[in-house]
Amino acid sequence: MKAVLVIADGLGGRPTDYDGKTCLEAARAPHLDALAERGINGLLYSIKPGVRPGSDTAHLSIFGYDPEVVYTGRGVFEAVGIGMEVGPGDVCLRTNFATVDDDLVVVDRRAGRISEGQNELERAVHGLKLNAYPDVDIHFKVSTEHRGALVLRGENLSSEISDPDPHKTGVKIHRAMPLVETEAAWQTAEIVNALVVRSYELLADLPFNRERERRGDLPANLLLPRGAAVPPQLTSLQERYGIEGAVIATGALYIGVAKLAGLRSFRAEGATGGLDSKILNKAILAVETLKDLDFVFIHVKGTDAAGHDHDAEAKIAFIERIDEMFAYLLQHLDWDETHLAFTGDHATPILYGDHTAEPVPIVFAGPNVLVDGVNRFNERSTTAGGLGVLHGQVLPVLFSYNDWGEKYGA
Amino acid sequence: MKAVLVIADGLGGRPTDYDGKTCLEAARAPHLDALAERGINGLLYSIKPGVRPGSDTAHLSIFGYDPEVVYTGRGVFEAVGIGMEVGPGDVCLRTNFATVDDDLVVVDRRAGRISEGQNELERAVHGLKLNAYPDVDIHFKVSTEHRGALVLRGENLSSEISDPDPHKTGVKIHRAMPLVETEAAWQTAEIVNALVVRSYELLADLPFNRERERRGDLPANLLLPRGAAVPPQLTSLQERYGIEGAVIATGALYIGVAKLAGLRSFRAEGATGGLDSKILNKAILAVETLKDLDFVFIHVKGTDAAGHDHDAEAKIAFIERIDEMFAYLLQHLDWDETHLAFTGDHATPILYGDHTAEPVPIVFAGPNVLVDGVNRFNERSTTAGGLGVLHGQVLPVLFSYNDWGEKYGA
Repeated sequence: MKAVLVIADGLGGRPTDYDGKTCLEAARAPHLDALAERGINGLLYSIKPGVRPGSDTAHLSIFGYDPEVVYTGRGVFEAVGIGMEVGPGDVCLRTNFATVDDDLVVVDRRAGRISEGQNELERAVHGLKLNAYPDVDIHFKVSTEHRGALVLRGENLSSEISDPDPHKTGVKIHRAMPLVETEAAWQTAEIVNALVVRSYELLADLPFNRERERRGDLPANLLLPRGAAVPPQLTSLQERYGIEGAVIATGALYIGVAKLAGLRSFRAEGATGGLDSKILNKAILAVETLKDLDFVFIHVKGTDAAGHDHDAEAKIAFIERIDEMFAYLLQHLDWDETHLAFTGDHATPILYGDHTAEPVPIVFAGPNVLVDGVNRFNERSTTAGGLGVLHGQVLPVLFSYNDWGEKYGA
Repeated sequence: MKAVLVIADGLGGRPTDYDGKTCLEAARAPHLDALAERGINGLLYSIKPGVRPGSDTAHLSIFGYDPEVVYTGRGVFEAVGIGMEVGPGDVCLRTNFATVDDDLVVVDRRAGRISEGQNELERAVHGLKLNAYPDVDIHFKVSTEHRGALVLRGENLSSEISDPDPHKTGVKIHRAMPLVETEAAWQTAEIVNALVVRSYELLADLPFNRERERRGDLPANLLLPRGAAVPPQLTSLQERYGIEGAVIATGALYIGVAKLAGLRSFRAEGATGGLDSKILNKAILAVETLKDLDFVFIHVKGTDAAGHDHDAEAKIAFIERIDEMFAYLLQHLDWDETHLAFTGDHATPILYGDHTAEPVPIVFAGPNVLVDGVNRFNERSTTAGGLGVLHGQVLPVLFSYNDWGEKYGA
């Protein structure tokens, strides 16, 4: 048996989205409706009712992990998602390239959303070494634009430190402070503070930055870390179910969650994570990947991006592109041997423009599901489905249709 | 007020059971449909979505206990279910009579599923005494065929030991080993190993076994234990609700769970646990029992047995016999004063032949339920019911219709 999970980020909406309808209700999506018609339908609270899910906690919960138990922070997923190696006890921090003045007062937390020179900046920052801490390994990698991640590895480190990032402009960067009274927290705070100062020394006079200043652009003259976290202890999907799978996604966060759950990461050609992403290629790659592996997780991001942009038409258009992707999946998956789940990780309504707590529609299709007569896929129609309401646990339910996993008890 | 819980083991199914229908959908069950019509209907995950329930964990959860907190293993329920006394700290093990050769290599873990001489074997094994451990009481009882249970009682015992049972043939029996570094675990492993060796001394030359060998049958020449467990700490139904009840079942496991929850155990005439079980007698005995007690739990097993046998026709036929049982209950219960719940503990679909994670239909009937208009009792029809989806907790919901139990908070 094979399994496919498709998550459209921020898929859900509100009646205020578009003329009294949610974007899903307003979209023309005959293949999503066909999927509903051959599936069992319901609603998903990715975490639980009344909780506004973050993307990381939502995906953990969808994968069957309890975020209340395992969640340590977003930084680890970002670091893993951009390809960094992370081991138990490593301290991961998300970083921005920022612009500060001579007094280390923050001018722009994102250095003008810098969109060039990432490799040059990364090379410069590779010079980060602290003579005072020869036993601590320091790794840095850029992600997109101003984004990156730091990983500290060594004895006697702790994630219990406050952020150097003041999270606003016009104030001096903060000193990281220990949040608990341990030697490890004191030492880690000192290291991070030393790194921030050292990054200024390495970046301020970089010819690349001098050139930006000449052009009137903001220099990327400081590495500003936040959100220290150690890796969560996740029992991998191999251990839990004895299966091998892959993630097909663009966003580092989603790739990071999936890799920490034991999935490999494949990239579809032309997939960007934006509204123009060639998501059909994800479906084509998924069908190809299932020849070798048991499970594929496809993540598409455009629905969430359009919601954050308050752009109903863009969200509707992207849902119709998801519909084309499902035209391909409906035709090319081996439906005698495959169970598929499609849902979102949360709602991103147009007016609010951020994640909200309402449940999102969900459908499971495949030979073992009890088809329930629902023939439209949206927030209202699926409430009449046979599935009822799930709180996370999408992968365990999907995999249980494939009879993967041990009996609990005897 | 009175309460009745009826569990049909492995009741649920899949559309692959029988011509696109589940066995419940395929069965002609007018009285189950009548029950749905006078009840409130929904779906039950006996534990939670995506979890394949064992029979023991499922029943604990249906009774309102959290298996993640209380479950210690199946052995205790089996021991209690066959009538052994079990107290706090006792170490219980399930046993098989097995066949081994002179080098203690396992020839058959079940001594040819021996179906004779259980009393003689039990008497022989009653000679188990270990001079080296005069303070440890050793109790043994046979169950059915090759099955039995051992209970060790004394100071300084532990259930944290590995199985002597190698769980396969052609290899020497294992030595029980401590799983934790405690004196109690070391001592218990030594005792169990000594008991296994002593059982061979007692059984190998038993005239009964010599006779079997002469006939070409496998001798029951070793007692092979597995699954050491101490009793779970369950707050009894008397303590929780102040009520007295009984279980009417055949399987030792179900009787064991019920007795540990504080129920008495009654046996209906002609009830076997098999497909030919006279289950109507369980309903007759239940109605009789309710004259004296507050609550009766009826367990029937044939649905699960037929599912394990991949036999759709047998499962459908057994559901139709359950329907006859409900014809009696509908007629003879005092419906002004009684609430009844009917459900399964998990699905046992025909093709898969083992427990699966899908929810099973559930109905509550009685004067306080809100009748919801559902008039068919199966996996699909009850999704439209008024109850929604339960995760275990069937007894607490049933008893709450009777207003049994304390307010939580003030």
